Amino acid sequence: MEHKIRVAVIGASGRMGREVVKTVLKESDMELVAGMDRSSGPIDLGTMVGLEPCGVTMRNDIQQALTEARPDVVVDFTGPHTAVSHTKLAIELGIRPVMGTTGFTPEGIAELDKLCQERQIGGVIAPNFSIGAILMMKFAAQASKYFPHLEIIEYHGDQKLDAPSGTSVKTAELISEVRGELRQGNPKEEETIEGARGGYYNGFRIHSVRLPGIFAQQEVVMAEKGQALKIRHDSYDREAYMPGVALAIRKVMTYSGMIYGFEHFID
Amino acid sequence: MEHKIRVAVIGASGRMGREVVKTVLKESDMELVAGMDRSSGPIDLGTMVGLEPCGVTMRNDIQQALTEARPDVVVDFTGPHTAVSHTKLAIELGIRPVMGTTGFTPEGIAELDKLCQERQIGGVIAPNFSIGAILMMKFAAQASKYFPHLEIIEYHGDQKLDAPSGTSVKTAELISEVRGELRQGNPKEEETIEGARGGYYNGFRIHSVRLPGIFAQQEVVMAEKGQALKIRHDSYDREAYMPGVALAIRKVMTYSGMIYGFEHFID
Amino acid sequence: MEHKIRVAVIGASGRMGREVVKTVLKESDMELVAGMDRSSGPIDLGTMVGLEPCGVTMRNDIQQALTEARPDVVVDFTGPHTAVSHTKLAIELGIRPVMGTTGFTPEGIAELDKLCQERQIGGVIAPNFSIGAILMMKFAAQASKYFPHLEIIEYHGDQKLDAPSGTSVKTAELISEVRGELRQGNPKEEETIEGARGGYYNGFRIHSVRLPGIFAQQEVVMAEKGQALKIRHDSYDREAYMPGVALAIRKVMTYSGMIYGFEHFID
Amino acid sequence: MEHKIRVAVIGASGRMGREVVKTVLKESDMELVAGMDRSSGPIDLGTMVGLEPCGVTMRNDIQQALTEARPDVVVDFTGPHTAVSHTKLAIELGIRPVMGTTGFTPEGIAELDKLCQERQIGGVIAPNFSIGAILMMKFAAQASKYFPHLEIIEYHGDQKLDAPSGTSVKTAELISEVRGELRQGNPKEEETIEGARGGYYNGFRIHSVRLPGIFAQQEVVMAEKGQALKIRHDSYDREAYMPGVALAIRKVMTYSGMIYGFEHFID
Repeated sequence: MEHKIRVAVIGASGRMGREVVKTVLKESDMELVAGMDRSSGPIDLGTMVGLEPCGVTMRNDIQQALTEARPDVVVDFTGPHTAVSHTKLAIELGIRPVMGTTGFTPEGIAELDKLCQERQIGGVIAPNFSIGAILMMKFAAQASKYFPHLEIIEYHGDQKLDAPSGTSVKTAELISEVRGELRQGNPKEEETIEGARGGYYNGFRIHSVRLPGIFAQQEVVMAEKGQALKIRHDSYDREAYMPGVALAIRKVMTYSGMIYGFEHFID
Repeated sequence: MEHKIRVAVIGASGRMGREVVKTVLKESDMELVAGMDRSSGPIDLGTMVGLEPCGVTMRNDIQQALTEARPDVVVDFTGPHTAVSHTKLAIELGIRPVMGTTGFTPEGIAELDKLCQERQIGGVIAPNFSIGAILMMKFAAQASKYFPHLEIIEYHGDQKLDAPSGTSVKTAELISEVRGELRQGNPKEEETIEGARGGYYNGFRIHSVRLPGIFAQQEVVMAEKGQALKIRHDSYDREAYMPGVALAIRKVMTYSGMIYGFEHFID
Repeated sequence: MEHKIRVAVIGASGRMGREVVKTVLKESDMELVAGMDRSSGPIDLGTMVGLEPCGVTMRNDIQQALTEARPDVVVDFTGPHTAVSHTKLAIELGIRPVMGTTGFTPEGIAELDKLCQERQIGGVIAPNFSIGAILMMKFAAQASKYFPHLEIIEYHGDQKLDAPSGTSVKTAELISEVRGELRQGNPKEEETIEGARGGYYNGFRIHSVRLPGIFAQQEVVMAEKGQALKIRHDSYDREAYMPGVALAIRKVMTYSGMIYGFEHFID
Repeated sequence: MEHKIRVAVIGASGRMGREVVKTVLKESDMELVAGMDRSSGPIDLGTMVGLEPCGVTMRNDIQQALTEARPDVVVDFTGPHTAVSHTKLAIELGIRPVMGTTGFTPEGIAELDKLCQERQIGGVIAPNFSIGAILMMKFAAQASKYFPHLEIIEYHGDQKLDAPSGTSVKTAELISEVRGELRQGNPKEEETIEGARGGYYNGFRIHSVRLPGIFAQQEVVMAEKGQALKIRHDSYDREAYMPGVALAIRKVMTYSGMIYGFEHFID
């Protein structure tokens, strides 16, 4: 019988944590061995996510739980404040960290890479585990070599505070590396309503739509005479990130060192 | 045998004029009886548009041609500078004018309406003969009663000088009559790139995309928790206006007076 | 102070029932006065749906609970097997039924209408409470007068057993009433892969896409030379039905008799 | 001054031929040196396409015109019947052929490759010069590694005789090389209208929409729990092929041998 990957989840009762728990319970090559949350009672993790009881009870003490459960991999979406300390703790215990957050400096990542190399374990830090979003960005950047005239339209919920979205700016950066400096449109163009033409980024435009009921969507529209190429990714809920988390759990078993950015797992 | 509608076209060698000539030649209940263009040689109108010769030769003198050809209807897309004088001339000759242009004052229209009533003929003046665009606007306005959270995204060619488009502003006006004053989005929303959130109109946003190869497209995206309703009209070229012109030619045969706005023909 | 509408929910722990409970708790002009489910323990209904406790405890005996709670309106999505008896019980108690189900005969509806008239209360029976879906169908039917060339593409989850969807067939029926008998396409058309051209309905085609992660989406694509009109409704989850349920709760307070079909509430 | 690429066009008065003439006249690194069409009078090629006269007059004798004009490259979209003889003639004269057609056997291509190698010139044969369509196919195939659940929806004019389109089948083949054999959907699925689920290809479905006014569009919809990735290419007219033809004209100057398939020029 093949060895299952033993997985622990920090922040298991959070919105992302619950999705990760469900994913680990469902994937046949993974075994949930621990779930931790500072502010949660001793509930069975399966019951918590609406599945069958799984025999793993939520714990509050991360270090003790990790030490006892001896997972291969720990998944943590608790955010930037706890990210550095949790990552170091995991590596010290020989556990591969899958960190879904920002909040690391380049120097910090270099140090964590060194620690992973020493322990001969893999790890990954990524602000976004969406395979679909990564593919959309890659394809848009590749296509911009042939379709340099383009605009980005991104859609999020109407209570989102910032515009444009992080993903759209990241997309714009990746496109700019390929596309160069072309300034689109007619130089004499005028807005009769200010802002109608969207946000200017390196020669092209980003439009941010904010409406209730939308989780995260983005379309890159590219056009030349006689044709248009459209690459669109729609996320409906947090489940969209789970195939990426599952892929990361499997990948960190296969190398040594700390990788920053989920895109390195996608070819 | 049923009487065919006798149609004359002013500005017949212009881009819209050629399309109108083609339409009249193809519709079985219409007969092309005259084509006029101040700056065009005496070419056969059928040949000019790439069809079979039709026996009607382009003329330069509008008044003389109309007097001799005795059309039921005259179609004119030559623009605001000539619109008033051509319309008056037509009515005086008892010919029903179908005018595809702006440039009329409310007083001017009232006067033309009186003249039409006296002669007991119909006429129509409209800046836009696109049935699809009219339907898009009507449906968006109707739906906004139930879906007040919405944004408009319009797409035109990259050399268009003004943003947002006239159609999108007209759509926004019609929506506002139904929707009222709701201000969408989070009041603490911030743009990290100026203009990303689009142009503000009465509580909602209009986004203008400008790309090569696009003639005229518009989507009204309406969303509430758990659902979205999208109404989109794409025009690929001037042919898009022809079903509306044909409808107008038939309609002006059926009433007396001058109608302003093509939307009155669409129920 | 205005009187709040007193609402009871039958099948309150079901997937639709929970959404209805949430809706009633959130709407400021409604008051949740009872929740019933045959197989559920005595949990607080607010707690059950992840909101604050609301002081209303789930009950098993529908008749007793309705008699004691004296609601104005009862909402019931429990399905065809229980629909008739629950509706009759509600009317006998003078409670307005909002029934989200099929399973009624025309004769049965006529009888329920008579009972409602006698009690001078309103009621509604509808298989679909989605305002967006109703608008999509209405708009598509209206537009088909001018755009008779059209196809329907509907998207549902990959485990749905039947194709095409009920909504797409209903849309096709409504369109056919307006559009007549036009048979689209080239009569010499041939499929090199059987079924590629979709399902034939009265001269046009319906295409059923089945993919994981999709709840319910439908697009009616209408096209003529030079233009296309697209009307699309996307539902992401059961929340999409709640504005319609809320509207129905308010509407049944305003008339006497039994209405079949939610479309009668939408103008 | 840099040498311009001398280009001749066979079938210059055809629909594709005219577009190629326009493209060559507009590209600053190309020079139109000959245009040939068996059935066309001695018109100036610039005048024919609605541009300024260019001083190149249409000729009927291909061999003589090519011999006298000494082009670097000849472009030919005249079709399978003439493709082989025109290609051989071009190579014999040391002119690089850009052939937009099918109708070559693998043996024939191998022979032409040998002839090109001997003359140390490049050539290309391709049924489709659309850069956008190639990118759509490549991206869809790449993404299907991560998004194996997918369906193809293609849109063409309502007079097209065959369904599904060649491009959609080519896309399906490329996807199948990556995706393997997964059979989508519920095995108990049933069609209440035959064909609703589309054409079956290797575990997934192709839907062919046929409507007036549509030139060529295709969308590959890929979905997993919580997300969808959509890759769409819309062609509005023959201009869509011109960037690809221009790219091919430049590319054939840079290698020896005959390449089959335009996709080899796109990275």
